[in-house]
Amino acid sequence: MQRNFILTLTGPDRIGIVDEVTGLLLDCGGNVETSRMARLGGEFAILMLVSMPEGRVAGLDEGLESLTARGYKVTTTRAERTYAQAHPGWRPYRIEVHGADHEGIVHEVAHFLSRLGINIESVDSETAPAPTSGVPLFAMTARVAVPPGLNAGAWEAGLEEIGSRMNVEIRAAAIEDPSAGL
Amino acid sequence: MQRNFILTLTGPDRIGIVDEVTGLLLDCGGNVETSRMARLGGEFAILMLVSMPEGRVAGLDEGLESLTARGYKVTTTRAERTYAQAHPGWRPYRIEVHGADHEGIVHEVAHFLSRLGINIESVDSETAPAPTSGVPLFAMTARVAVPPGLNAGAWEAGLEEIGSRMNVEIRAAAIEDPSAGL
Repeated sequence: MQRNFILTLTGPDRIGIVDEVTGLLLDCGGNVETSRMARLGGEFAILMLVSMPEGRVAGLDEGLESLTARGYKVTTTRAERTYAQAHPGWRPYRIEVHGADHEGIVHEVAHFLSRLGINIESVDSETAPAPTSGVPLFAMTARVAVPPGLNAGAWEAGLEEIGSRMNVEIRAAAIEDPSAGL
Repeated sequence: MQRNFILTLTGPDRIGIVDEVTGLLLDCGGNVETSRMARLGGEFAILMLVSMPEGRVAGLDEGLESLTARGYKVTTTRAERTYAQAHPGWRPYRIEVHGADHEGIVHEVAHFLSRLGINIESVDSETAPAPTSGVPLFAMTARVAVPPGLNAGAWEAGLEEIGSRMNVEIRAAAIEDPSAGL
């Protein structure tokens, strides 16, 4: 019986940390289903969905303890389903935001979506200084699931209003082939 | 004085969780510098680099405790630098892997890079059943930093060897403009 869980790990960036973590998983028969890993502010951070035979999880815990002992913060959270669609019949959209960085811009968009009952499936966002001017720029891509009853024109207009108020460009587009991201 | 830290959060997926977490940060004057968030196996997981005025961090801890009380696993890790380049003079490359899913494929690539002293800056990987056949497909994009002394032909040939052994397509290409990802 396979068990799915989410692993998070944060700690010192060094060459070989991905090698070590994925090696531990492999030693326990684990497979990395989805991963997001990045060097952030001089540290290295990992987010992974892992599937592993139920009986091997105890062995993994031992290996993870050796990372904890070296200053890594590790969490594991049991997850039930891997591919299940949370909202069958909801329409998938991609939302893209570009512009000057503002404190609270992710929150502004997330709050708007939440109020309308739109579910956020994933978000990737970056802030970085512009190459020449050094002005902080912001870029975000989100995948969302829109409930069937919601009028597309109405919620897209609401996003545009946020864009003009915060002086960023916001685009929303239906995803025709939800598996195209792969 | 701004303080940078990495926040990880894993727990029940529900509409409004991104709204709530980013709202907590905003209430404490926090800015999301980089984020990776995704629904994974029915749970929702967040990885963020946040900057916040030093004196406001205690207030955030209180807010995070209310999430912990509702079953979310939360970690915060202090990070020193936001934009610092870890390896000045090293050459940035993008590595892409596509093919049938194999247990251990992320580890195979990570182990190879680690042995050569190549640093992994970021990884995004997905596994999903092919639309028609249902065969699990794997896709990975990694950004790496290659030390100046390393011969490009030699390490790229090594990746190709892994690709043919594991029956996946692997491509490596120099990133001409490292800020182009934004």
